[in-house]
Amino acid sequence: MPDIGPDLAQKSLGDFAESFEQTLLKLMPEPEGMEGQVNDAMRYALMAGGKRLRPFLVTVAASLFSIEPKAAARVAAAVECIHTYSLIHDDLPAMDDDDMRRGLPSVHRKFDEATAVLAGDALLTLAFEILADKETHPDAEIRCELVSKLSAAIGVHGMVGGQMIDLKAENQSLNQMEIKRMQHMKTGALIVFSCETGAILAKVTDERRNALTGYAQDIGLAFQIVDDLLDVEGSSENIGKTAGKDVEAGKATLVSLMGVEEARKTADELVESSVRHLHVFDEKADILRSLAAFVFHRAH
Amino acid sequence: MPDIGPDLAQKSLGDFAESFEQTLLKLMPEPEGMEGQVNDAMRYALMAGGKRLRPFLVTVAASLFSIEPKAAARVAAAVECIHTYSLIHDDLPAMDDDDMRRGLPSVHRKFDEATAVLAGDALLTLAFEILADKETHPDAEIRCELVSKLSAAIGVHGMVGGQMIDLKAENQSLNQMEIKRMQHMKTGALIVFSCETGAILAKVTDERRNALTGYAQDIGLAFQIVDDLLDVEGSSENIGKTAGKDVEAGKATLVSLMGVEEARKTADELVESSVRHLHVFDEKADILRSLAAFVFHRAH
Repeated sequence: MPDIGPDLAQKSLGDFAESFEQTLLKLMPEPEGMEGQVNDAMRYALMAGGKRLRPFLVTVAASLFSIEPKAAARVAAAVECIHTYSLIHDDLPAMDDDDMRRGLPSVHRKFDEATAVLAGDALLTLAFEILADKETHPDAEIRCELVSKLSAAIGVHGMVGGQMIDLKAENQSLNQMEIKRMQHMKTGALIVFSCETGAILAKVTDERRNALTGYAQDIGLAFQIVDDLLDVEGSSENIGKTAGKDVEAGKATLVSLMGVEEARKTADELVESSVRHLHVFDEKADILRSLAAFVFHRAH
Repeated sequence: MPDIGPDLAQKSLGDFAESFEQTLLKLMPEPEGMEGQVNDAMRYALMAGGKRLRPFLVTVAASLFSIEPKAAARVAAAVECIHTYSLIHDDLPAMDDDDMRRGLPSVHRKFDEATAVLAGDALLTLAFEILADKETHPDAEIRCELVSKLSAAIGVHGMVGGQMIDLKAENQSLNQMEIKRMQHMKTGALIVFSCETGAILAKVTDERRNALTGYAQDIGLAFQIVDDLLDVEGSSENIGKTAGKDVEAGKATLVSLMGVEEARKTADELVESSVRHLHVFDEKADILRSLAAFVFHRAH
């Protein structure tokens, strides 16, 4: 377990989540006419809680380089739009078919399937609209890099491709390497992007950028394993969605492949490894170390 | 009917469509692993033909300002990715539920619904990846403007919002103004963007930009009315999808509201009006005038 305990991250995450909702609301397009149902669905999904892990990482990484809070807040909002879009589409009957999300009816249950597809599409689009806007950063090169890196992280070689593999994994068994690749694509790439945005906004291309992406890769996979552990061991209450769902669907996870104990050990190693990347930073990165402890804490 | 006949546009469109497919293929991401099914679906949808109207407009508008062909080709490809994504998602059972598209099984019929959702998502993402890439234009300000304008055209205040209204129109009747607003959002905004890209790439902000967007607004609505006329009068063969589908779904169109003759008259007026915008251009814009004649020709 890392030197620094989980309390700092846990408190910061909680405080952040609260203030971040205001940021999100301000950036939501106003409903205008008959299309307002899409706005309602976007807002419903965005405001349904969640840990806000990705925007938190954006904000913490940006603070390492003293980035202007407004820039970080907008990038954080864009990342949360992407994460939320992916949840809406993943929950669809044709995909993971999940009726509940974060303890509430998923978007296609609260509204309907068509609205869920469209709300996801609109959130995906809105993320790019936010990033490309001058308000995010005066330097267009930086804005373009944000758009480029984000699109690479969530396209067919990233999040979308990962979800495709995950769906296929219901019918064919993946080995450890394939599962790790799938999970890096499906959730890791966006977490890496979230951490990297700090370096992009600060135009830093040195070892500090690599430190952030290295940290993000390890902590991202650790988070995923812990989520899978909770899916096996936890209750629906703790994870906010139907427990045991992945197991029932016959989905391959590192937990199902390695067993609970081995998977927990792997998560622990990833947590340790994530922290080692942070030596290039001073105590400003303590919160990232504490976040690693938080993941360790959840796993045990 | 415009002074210039439809032949120039018809021939140019045909020639363009053929060469453009090569451009598209080069920009498609290579399938790598188990996620390859998404690549296959993206490619299937993109290569299923179509008039290639939007990329054609991008290319013609860019030629008015002597834009480098490579830049125009990449922007044209991005626009076609967006158009194709919208068709894939619109065809889904939860949306318009169309089994056929351009005379072929729609993506969710050829593959499955999950793959169709993901292929749409990936194409939407790819469009932004293409636009933000340095290869598209060395000037990051221009690339950001392309991303900004595109996202505004296709989000909840544009294409996505228009599709939401169109779905709602199955259950409640829209008046003429509401239908025009819906159609401007659903298809007009992307056509306007297609024409405007020439001015964006050339950093032109004068009356020539307004001329292009004015032309695009008129021709876009005219095209839509003609499509609706063909849906009422035409065969499945001509329009490449199930004929009479919109009528059957009880969808409000200007044709259903005004009747065939009145709608045709409106289309004619829009064609005339579209051409009037072009007086600021020399004979380089003849092809746009001919395109207007082509729309007129299709309407009669």
